[in-house]
Amino acid sequence: MIIEGRNAVLEALRAGMPLKRIILADGTKPDRTLEEIERRASQVGVDFARTSKRTLDDLSERGAHQGVLAEAKPYRYATLDELLKSSADKESALIIALDHVTDPGNLGAIVRTAEVVGAEGVLVANRRAAAVTPAAYKASAGALAHVALAQEANLANSLQRCKDAGFWIAGASEHAEHTVWDAPLSGRIVLVMGSEGEGLARLTKERCDFLVRLPQAGNIGSLNVAQATTAVAYEWLRRGASGV
Amino acid sequence: MIIEGRNAVLEALRAGMPLKRIILADGTKPDRTLEEIERRASQVGVDFARTSKRTLDDLSERGAHQGVLAEAKPYRYATLDELLKSSADKESALIIALDHVTDPGNLGAIVRTAEVVGAEGVLVANRRAAAVTPAAYKASAGALAHVALAQEANLANSLQRCKDAGFWIAGASEHAEHTVWDAPLSGRIVLVMGSEGEGLARLTKERCDFLVRLPQAGNIGSLNVAQATTAVAYEWLRRGASGV
Repeated sequence: MIIEGRNAVLEALRAGMPLKRIILADGTKPDRTLEEIERRASQVGVDFARTSKRTLDDLSERGAHQGVLAEAKPYRYATLDELLKSSADKESALIIALDHVTDPGNLGAIVRTAEVVGAEGVLVANRRAAAVTPAAYKASAGALAHVALAQEANLANSLQRCKDAGFWIAGASEHAEHTVWDAPLSGRIVLVMGSEGEGLARLTKERCDFLVRLPQAGNIGSLNVAQATTAVAYEWLRRGASGV
Repeated sequence: MIIEGRNAVLEALRAGMPLKRIILADGTKPDRTLEEIERRASQVGVDFARTSKRTLDDLSERGAHQGVLAEAKPYRYATLDELLKSSADKESALIIALDHVTDPGNLGAIVRTAEVVGAEGVLVANRRAAAVTPAAYKASAGALAHVALAQEANLANSLQRCKDAGFWIAGASEHAEHTVWDAPLSGRIVLVMGSEGEGLARLTKERCDFLVRLPQAGNIGSLNVAQATTAVAYEWLRRGASGV
């Protein structure tokens, strides 16, 4: 992944995103942002290279480098096999699966929640899934380096493999009959969250053992997918703690 | 409030922020962003004025107008009196009070949560509190137009007035003895959330009847203040629904 422009590169450094190197075009005018980039890059030991503006233009994907770009280290995704293996002997384990969640900030916030509630990991399908961008790192507040984020080609197949491994598949849906409070949301659970606009895909829903909804007392809206994930994940944690 | 620059003005329009007028500098080069600003402004009936670049420079607060700025309508804050009046006869009511929460995105997300759980309103102290910016509107997803957001000069005094009106004051703190699951988090509750870095101020803590913490099963982190508010507010809602 290429990160372009002073503010984006600085945000990536601040968020702790692992970078391969930072490349500066010759003759780029120094400013305070650039100084902070240099300082932070040297603190964390990121290589700093200089090259011609033309070479930077060639490396650029969006033509927005403003004289600076960074190459991120490839994110090391986990696999579903790893999640199933690490959870094999646990009576209680949570995998958060995301169906078409495309916003990197939401992905990062959900990974942060996964870390805090002690989830086994997060599972995304690799088509149209949110990417691990600087915004995702920022929203995860460091959790992306600690939580297993698995990427699989086919979500429906992956859910079936989770079922075979003794997980119950709980899909979050506004139209569910059961609330998160009366559904059997404890033990080995895969919680499937859909995108805000579209909800769960039909094929995903068919793989769910049950659907749950978050009760709403308001009049107009619903939570965004990251907030909703937090609320449901804490209900799973509560059940485990209280033995309900 | 003055909103400066094409992207910021467009974001304010997209987020449904009520604007007084949009002002364009003569000779500003049209582009797609500007076209969308004009289209959306005419849809919602916002005045569109043209003036000299010099006048725009004078109106600008940050010198970042790029030929376009917008004047927002003043946000109509509620008062604590209004919150106490509207909740006077309710056995169960939630006020979410924010102590030094300064990020507008977090403010917006918390207002969204307040709407969804049916809270009475949100209370902020007017020193160093988060402002109702376009980012706050965006994160609130429309809820800022529906939830009573009260601003009071002194949070400690405001909490005392809530106590006098029959509310219990619950402060969120990582160092609390009780978890949200075993604390008396039901009925008439003011939930006080602190900033991520600093937590609750000493004076605020002294006004609390009890402190609560969100249990954490992870190793490294905690939730951000908006996510934490969602988790605690849902526990309050669950108690009310189940009569616990």
